Amino acid sequence: MAGDKLFPFVTTDVALFTLDGDALRVLVVKRTNEPERGRWALPGGALKPSLDEDLAASARRVLAEKVRFDIPYLEQVCAFSGRDRDSRGWSISVLFYALLPKDRIDAVAGHKTEAIEWVDPDRPGRELAFDHDRQLAEALAQLRAKIEHDALPLHLLPDRFTLTELQRACEAITGEALDKSAFRRRLKLREGKEFVEVPGEFAEGAHRPAQYYRRTRGFRF
Amino acid sequence: MAGDKLFPFVTTDVALFTLDGDALRVLVVKRTNEPERGRWALPGGALKPSLDEDLAASARRVLAEKVRFDIPYLEQVCAFSGRDRDSRGWSISVLFYALLPKDRIDAVAGHKTEAIEWVDPDRPGRELAFDHDRQLAEALAQLRAKIEHDALPLHLLPDRFTLTELQRACEAITGEALDKSAFRRRLKLREGKEFVEVPGEFAEGAHRPAQYYRRTRGFRF
Repeated sequence: MAGDKLFPFVTTDVALFTLDGDALRVLVVKRTNEPERGRWALPGGALKPSLDEDLAASARRVLAEKVRFDIPYLEQVCAFSGRDRDSRGWSISVLFYALLPKDRIDAVAGHKTEAIEWVDPDRPGRELAFDHDRQLAEALAQLRAKIEHDALPLHLLPDRFTLTELQRACEAITGEALDKSAFRRRLKLREGKEFVEVPGEFAEGAHRPAQYYRRTRGFRF
Repeated sequence: MAGDKLFPFVTTDVALFTLDGDALRVLVVKRTNEPERGRWALPGGALKPSLDEDLAASARRVLAEKVRFDIPYLEQVCAFSGRDRDSRGWSISVLFYALLPKDRIDAVAGHKTEAIEWVDPDRPGRELAFDHDRQLAEALAQLRAKIEHDALPLHLLPDRFTLTELQRACEAITGEALDKSAFRRRLKLREGKEFVEVPGEFAEGAHRPAQYYRRTRGFRF
């Protein structure tokens, strides 16, 4: 049985982030099974060694039940573990975070009778099941640190995007307004390597049309 | 049995870093048991749910067999997993790194008939067992990133240390020489919070005596 004296019970959980307008959101699902039935949690599920190549594949399989779209970016956060975090016994949950492009928010749906909601990761508005409040805080801290150390969250954006959208995405994650000209200077160093112009394509705006850009094939978050 | 269709085999492995003089070193042990008997590996061992409170406690227990000294700092790197990384079956290894103060290098000894060696983590001089070459590279990258983002590796130093020793420790990790006056200015911002003077205690040197410092109790790496 799971969580017995010899073998821990292993799950993967995923903090799936996206943007709703200019606001950072994370997916929570209402649990339809015991334990903690009826409570909200990050999506997750048991590792299946016969099906899963490794833990990342397991997290992708679990996510595939909720998201009808191939998630471009998934990163391991860390493992949570111990005797008491899950009533099924000694358990390990390996946490990942994933980024969903903002124009794909409709590709996400609950599995069977499961309710889903996109919530503010800083204020999910409910106490999450298991240790998922701590998991969410850790995933968010890791995503923020990455942006503060200058990574560009291009996976949160549609296939083509403007530099203003990119700035808004960074601001949504860190919660801090960026100076436009300093941000543009920073971007100049990455243009050509991480993202490139889409020639002749412009977004209509209140002012003049804005150039569209896209990720390069070699882009790594 | 381990690694069967339902439950993965779970171990923790530890990259234990220290300084030998001014050089960064990591501990490797020669395996005395199958699988991969006779090969060199990072120290590690099977999780024991009946003994271990959580994964970090398991890593500390495994390390306690090699190190007769309470390791002040242990941090999770990430989990490695899959069907093929260990011949015992589907397995998970949760990797930690730990920092041993340079004056405690003699507190480390092999367990029973096990041989140990301190090697250059960039060039261990042998191919390590399992996926431990990849594990070591990952632990080293995470330690380096932390120092490059300004953390001070005070846990590698003796209970009292000079600022020159601290600079050498940073340089040993990143592999890059630091400008002394720029480094001292950076330290000024942390003095009092992360480390403090040991009043009246000085190291003898070739030039004038150098002030000794110690970690504050609240210091967090």
